[in-house]
Amino acid sequence: MTQNIYDDPAFFAGYNQLPRSVGGLANAPEWGALHALLPDIRGLRVVDLGCGFGWFCRWAADEGAARVVGFDVSENMLARARAETTHKTVAYERADLEQLDLPERAFDLAYSSLALHYIEDVGRILAVVHRALVPGSRFVFSIEHPIYMAPQQPGWVTDQHGRRTWPLESYFVEGARRTNWLADGVIKQHRTMGTTLNLLIRTGFQIAHVEEWRPSDAQIAAHPEWAEELDRPMFLLIAADR
Amino acid sequence: MTQNIYDDPAFFAGYNQLPRSVGGLANAPEWGALHALLPDIRGLRVVDLGCGFGWFCRWAADEGAARVVGFDVSENMLARARAETTHKTVAYERADLEQLDLPERAFDLAYSSLALHYIEDVGRILAVVHRALVPGSRFVFSIEHPIYMAPQQPGWVTDQHGRRTWPLESYFVEGARRTNWLADGVIKQHRTMGTTLNLLIRTGFQIAHVEEWRPSDAQIAAHPEWAEELDRPMFLLIAADR
Repeated sequence: MTQNIYDDPAFFAGYNQLPRSVGGLANAPEWGALHALLPDIRGLRVVDLGCGFGWFCRWAADEGAARVVGFDVSENMLARARAETTHKTVAYERADLEQLDLPERAFDLAYSSLALHYIEDVGRILAVVHRALVPGSRFVFSIEHPIYMAPQQPGWVTDQHGRRTWPLESYFVEGARRTNWLADGVIKQHRTMGTTLNLLIRTGFQIAHVEEWRPSDAQIAAHPEWAEELDRPMFLLIAADR
Repeated sequence: MTQNIYDDPAFFAGYNQLPRSVGGLANAPEWGALHALLPDIRGLRVVDLGCGFGWFCRWAADEGAARVVGFDVSENMLARARAETTHKTVAYERADLEQLDLPERAFDLAYSSLALHYIEDVGRILAVVHRALVPGSRFVFSIEHPIYMAPQQPGWVTDQHGRRTWPLESYFVEGARRTNWLADGVIKQHRTMGTTLNLLIRTGFQIAHVEEWRPSDAQIAAHPEWAEELDRPMFLLIAADR
């Protein structure tokens, strides 16, 4: 079973106050880039893996999706998602993505935002998603970038020459990373870029686009502190065609 | 025109003494992984972009390729390649990969080892390769990994906590990197992983495999000093299907 850190009271209290938790998609800096990878969503049957507060599910319904099913392991998040959703086309279900099964050829679009890096057996969920999608459909997802995930101590450092750098190491040491983000001991699963892409390909997906997210010039002008994001990628966004 | 560093006497003298220059493919640690991406080469018409001393061209001919054409910008390298090649199926031609043109649908396999990171307009050469390959064929190439290329000062550092790390920065700042390797002022072109993969996809290739090279356990046992290669990827190997 996945560590359900979102039902940890301290973590959830912190997560609840993040800009993206308060303002939704518009406050997630990578949303524009993720949106650009989506097909026209009108009439599509959509599944959202790790739906959280349901921001994407409601957006998809507003955009004309025929049906949207959001899965999440966190009761806290699903409770808020349900309370904030009035759309009849949206349903939420509790599920651990390590165990989730989906019906065959039941969806026209699969989506997942910053959830799959918590999953140990990502090959399994990729196979489930592939089977659940109809031919000609797409899987769009984001994860933390492997460069961001790899270091045992992720945080900018200053080297012996006084240069500020991202301390990459252990890139090829795949597996659990224990970090303290909002709460102590959050467990994420590091995989190399190659592992993720080759798993998708072997599962039967065709890689359509690989976006290593960086803030746009306009975003940096509005948030000068984001310029450091040009030094190393934080998010990895992938579009894969079924 | 590409900087032709291989015809710089100091660089060439140094390059001539590298294990891979003395012992060929068997002395290139990433050769096994690159080999694994190749199709059965018997009967194929092969083009090698940046053929250097011709090790791969001769190997391909020995393996039964119908015809092998190697291109390189360096007179020095081509002179040695020609002197060491007796195969009637192998031909070498001098060409700058920034300018090279190839006939349409003339090859069944394109190959390039550690050459494309010298090329400024890689989109152009990818289009030339795509056009030169027959449908159903493959392009296999290696470049220095973007993580290895990105830092302005590529070399292990020790941070303020005493940890040895790879000093990643400037990842999204694409373009020239000037390093001192065998000679001063070697110019390479840094591109992100996303840029390279998306250029391939937009050109019409289908990504078949992405190998971020790491030494095998057996290689590390034989060369314990290579263990540091587990901390950050040095080479990127890609197989793309036409």
